[in-house]
Amino acid sequence: MSLIVTGSIGIDTIETPDGQKADSVLGGSSIYFAAAASYFGDVRLVGAVGEDFPEAFVGDFKHFDVDTTGLEVRKGSKTFRWHGKYLENMNDRETISVDLNVLAEDLPPVPDGYKDSQYIFLANTHPAGQMALLENFPNRKLVVADTMDLWINTEKAVLTDLLRQIDGLVLNDSEAELLTGESNVIVAADKIVAMGPKFVVVKKGAHGAILRHDDGVCALPAYPARKVIDPTGAGDSFAGGMMGYLASADDISYATLCKAMAYGTVVASFNIEDFSLGRLKTLEKAELDQRYAEFTAMLNV
Amino acid sequence: MSLIVTGSIGIDTIETPDGQKADSVLGGSSIYFAAAASYFGDVRLVGAVGEDFPEAFVGDFKHFDVDTTGLEVRKGSKTFRWHGKYLENMNDRETISVDLNVLAEDLPPVPDGYKDSQYIFLANTHPAGQMALLENFPNRKLVVADTMDLWINTEKAVLTDLLRQIDGLVLNDSEAELLTGESNVIVAADKIVAMGPKFVVVKKGAHGAILRHDDGVCALPAYPARKVIDPTGAGDSFAGGMMGYLASADDISYATLCKAMAYGTVVASFNIEDFSLGRLKTLEKAELDQRYAEFTAMLNV
Repeated sequence: MSLIVTGSIGIDTIETPDGQKADSVLGGSSIYFAAAASYFGDVRLVGAVGEDFPEAFVGDFKHFDVDTTGLEVRKGSKTFRWHGKYLENMNDRETISVDLNVLAEDLPPVPDGYKDSQYIFLANTHPAGQMALLENFPNRKLVVADTMDLWINTEKAVLTDLLRQIDGLVLNDSEAELLTGESNVIVAADKIVAMGPKFVVVKKGAHGAILRHDDGVCALPAYPARKVIDPTGAGDSFAGGMMGYLASADDISYATLCKAMAYGTVVASFNIEDFSLGRLKTLEKAELDQRYAEFTAMLNV
Repeated sequence: MSLIVTGSIGIDTIETPDGQKADSVLGGSSIYFAAAASYFGDVRLVGAVGEDFPEAFVGDFKHFDVDTTGLEVRKGSKTFRWHGKYLENMNDRETISVDLNVLAEDLPPVPDGYKDSQYIFLANTHPAGQMALLENFPNRKLVVADTMDLWINTEKAVLTDLLRQIDGLVLNDSEAELLTGESNVIVAADKIVAMGPKFVVVKKGAHGAILRHDDGVCALPAYPARKVIDPTGAGDSFAGGMMGYLASADDISYATLCKAMAYGTVVASFNIEDFSLGRLKTLEKAELDQRYAEFTAMLNV
């Protein structure tokens, strides 16, 4: 297994409708991804932060045993910051402020030791940056990318190029509709597959996820969670669990993808139980395996 | 098995966002329910229509072998009529017009031959009417009711009484939130169970359904459907498949309820493929069983 992720690393401030607030906590798509994937094996991270990045946050990567050789603390730059507030439904959110900072600069170079990576996850960031990174991995076996409404609206041409270079795309249902103009999730996924990738995973938040693959369509519910403190990073930890499992199984068949999606679902269900990486930091692999068993038993009707 | 349903029988006019329109077609909650349940065994129907009810519609019941001893064609009355239009998302809809007509009058008497019914489904109608009907079935083994926002808003006291008389409640996610003030589906279901019923099934349209029972929580996705012509009656045919299976299994354990919910999901996935009962009228049991096998295989991750 040689799984690598690149994406955002950020300092988040998050407000939830019950009045709770997490101020300046560790966040970013690649962080949630890497923490989630770490339960299945080694994870390599490529990304940059600014001089303002707290030392304690680096310690948090260490906890998950993430390989941070590719993490650059860039002098004279500032870390990406996001401040968001969830609406009453705990699904939709508004961005109060966002400062791209170092995220608007070049990615750090990929360390030589990373270049044999076979499983590549391009967490949500500018599609040009995602594409540029790919050239570094001549032995790549599976490339999956995430994207967001911003790039669909502003960088559709580059994103369309990227879709021809990747094996799988992960995105939200609203983003799938924005990209294709189609509100039926499966038909939207059909259209995306026609644009290049072999499969698409559409994330539906509290309503689960759907895999569209040439060998079949797999719809899974979310884990039925009573406790949702902060949904930030749910989609990224879902992708981390999914890719982590795929890399550990070293198999990308339809059946393994369905199983991987179930693992992603279960990791995400823990992630939302606290702000930032709060819950994953205390999560043991045995707990994860137990909930996975419970989840798959529930589905075995 | 002795399954009985009461609810609305109507003449519907339905418009969909692609410009299609079905004018004055057979509809109503108990009609969709009975057609769906008929795949699993006998179904008895109690309800009234007006003199304007087309003869051809009675023929449609015959097709499904529904027992219509309890169907009254009331002289001087008019049939319930509903005209609705679906929004772009094919989930939300607006009511253009509704005429309660015979639905605002007394229910017809329950035929003596129906009084040994054990499985009772109170499809959506006034909760006072639902409650009054119950007294006719001294051997009742399982009573499940559906309801809607109208009764939650206008008849909460009667509905609260009804909740203490039934075993299960089936309702939409938005209705569960309206009834409890809780947006988390599982927590809302917890609160409903505290009001009386042993279990709650929350329907989430294209996102599936969740069963909350003392022995567990079972979340299932919808069948991943590319073809959605008309969602009218999806919830009622879901309930019909569910209750039909429960009555045929003559078992109301948690495990059987989960399985029943999967059958309901599959019947509903056919129902939405055409207007009115168009698709169910051509559906063979073997097709239903085949899709059920496909659906459960998909979930067997």
